[in-house]
Amino acid sequence: MTDTRDEGLILDPRYDKDGLITAVATDQATGEMLMLAHMNAEALALTVETGIAHFWSRSRQALWKKGETSGHALHVEDIRIDCDQDAIWLIVRPHGPACHTGRRACFYRRIVGDRLEWVDASER
Amino acid sequence: MTDTRDEGLILDPRYDKDGLITAVATDQATGEMLMLAHMNAEALALTVETGIAHFWSRSRQALWKKGETSGHALHVEDIRIDCDQDAIWLIVRPHGPACHTGRRACFYRRIVGDRLEWVDASER
Repeated sequence: MTDTRDEGLILDPRYDKDGLITAVATDQATGEMLMLAHMNAEALALTVETGIAHFWSRSRQALWKKGETSGHALHVEDIRIDCDQDAIWLIVRPHGPACHTGRRACFYRRIVGDRLEWVDASER
Repeated sequence: MTDTRDEGLILDPRYDKDGLITAVATDQATGEMLMLAHMNAEALALTVETGIAHFWSRSRQALWKKGETSGHALHVEDIRIDCDQDAIWLIVRPHGPACHTGRRACFYRRIVGDRLEWVDASER
Protein backbone atom coordinates (compact mmCIF):
# COMPACT_ATOMS: atom_id res chain seq x y z
CA MET A 1 0.00 0.00 0.00
CA THR A 2 1.53 3.27 -1.11
CA ASP A 3 -0.14 6.59 -0.39
CA THR A 4 0.77 10.28 -0.26
CA ARG A 5 2.45 9.80 3.11
CA ASP A 6 4.93 7.48 1.36
CA GLU A 7 5.71 9.54 -1.70
CA GLY A 8 5.17 13.19 -0.84
CA LEU A 9 7.26 15.90 0.78
CA ILE A 10 4.58 16.92 3.27
CA LEU A 11 5.56 16.23 6.87
CA ASP A 12 2.58 14.37 8.30
CA PRO A 13 3.75 12.17 11.19
CA ARG A 14 1.47 9.28 11.99
CA TYR A 15 1.22 9.58 15.77
CA ASP A 16 -0.26 6.62 17.64
CA LYS A 17 -3.35 6.81 19.80
CA ASP A 18 -1.22 8.22 22.64
CA GLY A 19 0.06 10.94 20.33
CA LEU A 20 3.52 9.39 20.07
CA ILE A 21 5.93 8.37 17.33
CA THR A 22 8.90 6.02 17.79
CA ALA A 23 12.37 7.52 17.39
CA VAL A 24 15.74 5.79 17.19
CA ALA A 25 19.12 7.46 17.44
CA THR A 26 22.37 6.28 15.89
CA ASP A 27 25.87 7.67 16.30
CA GLN A 28 26.93 9.67 13.27
CA ALA A 29 30.57 8.64 13.64
CA THR A 30 30.20 4.91 14.30
CA GLY A 31 26.70 4.05 13.10
CA GLU A 32 26.02 2.41 16.44
CA MET A 33 22.40 2.16 17.56
CA LEU A 34 22.30 4.27 20.68
CA MET A 35 18.72 4.26 21.93
CA LEU A 36 15.04 4.00 21.09
CA ALA A 37 12.48 6.34 22.60
CA HIS A 38 9.26 8.18 21.76
CA MET A 39 8.33 11.70 20.73
CA ASN A 40 5.11 13.65 20.83
CA ALA A 41 4.55 16.51 18.42
CA GLU A 42 6.14 19.02 20.80
CA ALA A 43 9.27 16.89 21.25
CA LEU A 44 9.64 16.50 17.49
CA ALA A 45 9.16 20.23 16.90
CA LEU A 46 11.73 21.11 19.58
CA THR A 47 14.20 18.61 18.16
CA VAL A 48 13.87 20.10 14.67
CA GLU A 49 14.05 23.66 16.00
CA THR A 50 16.94 23.31 18.46
CA GLY A 51 19.03 20.47 17.00
CA ILE A 52 19.01 18.78 20.41
CA ALA A 53 17.05 15.54 20.82
CA HIS A 54 13.84 15.86 22.80
CA PHE A 55 11.57 12.94 23.62
CA TRP A 56 8.40 12.18 25.54
CA SER A 57 9.02 10.15 28.66
CA ARG A 58 6.23 7.59 28.90
CA SER A 59 7.20 6.65 32.46
CA ARG A 60 7.23 10.25 33.67
CA GLN A 61 4.54 11.44 31.22
CA ALA A 62 6.61 14.52 30.57
CA LEU A 63 8.62 16.24 27.86
CA TRP A 64 12.21 15.06 28.14
CA LYS A 65 15.13 17.07 26.84
CA LYS A 66 17.77 14.37 26.91
CA GLY A 67 20.82 15.49 28.86
CA GLU A 68 19.00 18.27 30.68
CA THR A 69 20.05 16.82 34.05
CA SER A 70 22.91 14.48 33.02
CA GLY A 71 24.51 16.75 30.46
CA HIS A 72 24.48 13.81 28.01
CA ALA A 73 22.68 15.50 25.16
CA LEU A 74 22.30 14.17 21.63
CA HIS A 75 23.24 16.76 18.99
CA VAL A 76 21.15 16.05 15.92
CA GLU A 77 22.90 16.09 12.55
CA ASP A 78 20.07 14.67 10.47
CA ILE A 79 16.44 13.68 11.04
CA ARG A 80 14.84 11.09 8.79
CA ILE A 81 11.28 9.83 8.67
CA ASP A 82 10.20 6.49 7.28
CA CYS A 83 7.90 5.57 4.41
CA ASP A 84 4.59 5.65 6.30
CA GLN A 85 5.78 8.42 8.63
CA ASP A 86 5.43 6.47 11.85
CA ALA A 87 9.13 6.28 12.75
CA ILE A 88 11.91 8.85 13.15
CA TRP A 89 15.63 8.22 12.75
CA LEU A 90 17.99 10.69 14.42
CA ILE A 91 21.62 10.71 13.32
CA VAL A 92 23.43 12.30 16.24
CA ARG A 93 26.67 13.31 17.91
CA PRO A 94 26.26 12.07 21.49
CA HIS A 95 27.78 14.08 24.30
CA GLY A 96 28.49 11.32 26.78
CA PRO A 97 26.73 8.01 27.30
CA ALA A 98 23.32 7.68 25.69
CA CYS A 99 22.07 4.96 28.07
CA HIS A 100 20.70 5.64 31.53
CA THR A 101 22.96 2.82 32.82
CA GLY A 102 26.00 4.94 31.95
CA ARG A 103 26.87 2.84 28.92
CA ARG A 104 27.54 4.44 25.56
CA ALA A 105 24.47 2.77 24.06
CA CYS A 106 21.44 0.82 25.25
CA PHE A 107 21.96 -2.31 23.13
CA TYR A 108 24.78 -3.94 25.15
CA ARG A 109 23.33 -7.48 25.17
CA ARG A 110 22.54 -9.91 22.38
CA ILE A 111 19.87 -12.58 22.31
CA VAL A 112 21.29 -16.08 21.94
CA GLY A 113 18.63 -18.77 22.09
CA ASP A 114 16.57 -18.06 25.19
CA ARG A 115 19.35 -16.18 27.00
CA LEU A 116 21.26 -12.92 26.76
CA GLU A 117 25.00 -12.41 26.38
CA TRP A 118 27.06 -9.30 26.99
CA VAL A 119 28.34 -7.65 23.83
CA ASP A 120 32.09 -6.95 23.92
CA ALA A 121 32.94 -3.28 23.68
CA SER A 122 35.09 -4.15 20.66
CA GLU A 123 32.08 -5.45 18.76
CA ARG A 124 30.00 -2.32 19.16
CA MET B 1 16.02 3.42 37.44
CA THR B 2 18.07 0.26 37.05
CA ASP B 3 16.56 -3.14 37.70
CA THR B 4 17.26 -6.78 36.88
CA ARG B 5 15.95 -6.28 33.35
CA ASP B 6 18.80 -3.81 32.80
CA GLU B 7 21.67 -5.77 34.28
CA GLY B 8 20.84 -9.46 34.00
CA LEU B 9 21.24 -12.11 31.32
CA ILE B 10 17.66 -13.29 31.53
CA LEU B 11 15.67 -12.64 28.37
CA ASP B 12 12.50 -10.95 29.59
CA PRO B 13 11.08 -8.76 26.81
CA ARG B 14 8.80 -6.01 27.96
CA TYR B 15 5.89 -6.41 25.54
CA ASP B 16 3.39 -3.57 25.40
CA LYS B 17 -0.30 -3.95 26.14
CA ASP B 18 -0.83 -5.31 22.64
CA GLY B 19 1.85 -7.93 23.21
CA LEU B 20 4.35 -6.19 20.91
CA ILE B 21 7.93 -4.99 21.08
CA THR B 22 9.52 -2.52 18.65
CA ALA B 23 12.26 -3.82 16.37
CA VAL B 24 14.64 -1.92 14.10
CA ALA B 25 16.85 -3.44 11.43
CA THR B 26 20.16 -2.07 10.17
CA ASP B 27 22.32 -3.28 7.31
CA GLN B 28 25.35 -5.17 8.60
CA ALA B 29 27.52 -3.97 5.71
CA THR B 30 26.62 -0.27 5.63
CA GLY B 31 25.05 0.45 9.01
CA GLU B 32 22.06 1.97 7.23
CA MET B 33 18.77 2.02 9.08
CA LEU B 34 16.53 -0.17 6.96
CA MET B 35 13.16 -0.35 8.72
CA LEU B 36 11.23 -0.26 11.96
CA ALA B 37 8.51 -2.76 12.75
CA HIS B 38 7.00 -4.74 15.62
CA MET B 39 7.27 -8.29 16.92
CA ASN B 40 5.09 -10.38 19.14
CA ALA B 41 6.60 -13.24 21.15
CA GLU B 42 6.10 -15.70 18.30
CA ALA B 43 7.81 -13.42 15.76
CA LEU B 44 10.77 -12.93 18.09
CA ALA B 45 11.05 -16.67 18.77
CA LEU B 46 10.91 -17.48 15.04
CA THR B 47 13.51 -14.83 14.27
CA VAL B 48 15.88 -16.26 16.88
CA GLU B 49 15.22 -19.84 15.77
CA THR B 50 15.41 -19.39 11.99
CA GLY B 51 17.76 -16.43 11.53
CA ILE B 52 15.18 -14.81 9.23
CA ALA B 53 13.39 -11.69 10.45
CA HIS B 54 9.77 -12.21 11.41
CA PHE B 55 7.47 -9.42 12.55
CA TRP B 56 3.86 -8.85 13.55
CA SER B 57 1.92 -6.84 11.00
CA ARG B 58 -0.29 -4.45 12.92
CA SER B 59 -2.26 -3.53 9.80
CA ARG B 60 -2.95 -7.14 8.86
CA GLN B 61 -2.96 -8.43 12.45
CA ALA B 62 -0.89 -11.40 11.34
CA LEU B 63 2.51 -12.95 11.71
CA TRP B 64 4.73 -11.58 8.95
CA LYS B 65 7.78 -13.42 7.66
CA LYS B 66 9.40 -10.59 5.77
CA GLY B 67 10.13 -11.62 2.19
CA GLU B 68 7.69 -14.51 2.19
CA THR B 69 5.91 -13.09 -0.85
CA SER B 70 8.49 -10.57 -2.17
CA GLY B 71 11.56 -12.72 -1.63
CA HIS B 72 13.16 -9.74 0.14
CA ALA B 73 14.09 -11.46 3.38
CA LEU B 74 16.33 -10.07 6.11
CA HIS B 75 19.01 -12.56 7.19
CA VAL B 76 19.77 -11.88 10.82
CA GLU B 77 23.42 -11.75 11.86
CA ASP B 78 22.92 -10.44 15.38
CA ILE B 79 19.96 -9.65 17.64
CA ARG B 80 20.38 -7.09 20.41
CA ILE B 81 17.97 -6.01 23.11
CA ASP B 82 18.06 -2.70 24.91
CA CYS B 83 18.52 -1.84 28.59
CA ASP B 84 14.90 -2.12 29.69
CA GLN B 85 14.14 -4.86 27.15
CA ASP B 86 11.47 -3.01 25.25
CA ALA B 87 13.35 -2.65 21.94
CA ILE B 88 15.09 -5.09 19.59
CA TRP B 89 17.92 -4.27 17.17
CA LEU B 90 18.42 -6.66 14.26
CA ILE B 91 21.72 -6.48 12.38
CA VAL B 92 20.91 -8.03 9.02
CA ARG B 93 21.96 -8.92 5.51
CA PRO B 94 19.05 -7.78 3.36
CA HIS B 95 18.13 -9.76 0.27
CA GLY B 96 16.70 -7.02 -1.87
CA PRO B 97 14.94 -3.81 -0.87
CA ALA B 98 13.75 -3.62 2.72
CA CYS B 99 11.04 -1.03 2.05
CA HIS B 100 7.60 -1.84 0.65
CA THR B 101 8.09 1.06 -1.81
CA GLY B 102 10.90 -0.88 -3.46
CA ARG B 103 13.60 1.31 -1.95
CA ARG B 104 16.58 -0.18 -0.19
CA ALA B 105 15.49 1.36 3.10
CA CYS B 106 12.46 3.14 4.53
CA PHE B 107 14.20 6.34 5.67
CA TYR B 108 14.57 8.07 2.29
CA ARG B 109 13.40 11.52 3.39
CA ARG B 110 14.75 13.99 5.92
CA ILE B 111 12.84 16.51 7.97
CA VAL B 112 13.91 20.09 7.27
CA GLY B 113 11.85 22.62 9.17
CA ASP B 114 8.22 21.74 8.53
CA ARG B 115 8.90 19.97 5.22
CA LEU B 116 10.54 16.82 3.92
CA GLU B 117 13.41 16.51 1.45
CA TRP B 118 14.53 13.49 -0.53
CA VAL B 119 17.80 11.99 0.67
CA ASP B 120 20.33 11.48 -2.11
CA ALA B 121 21.27 7.86 -2.63
CA SER B 122 24.91 8.89 -2.10
CA GLU B 123 24.13 10.07 1.43
CA ARG B 124 22.54 6.85 2.57
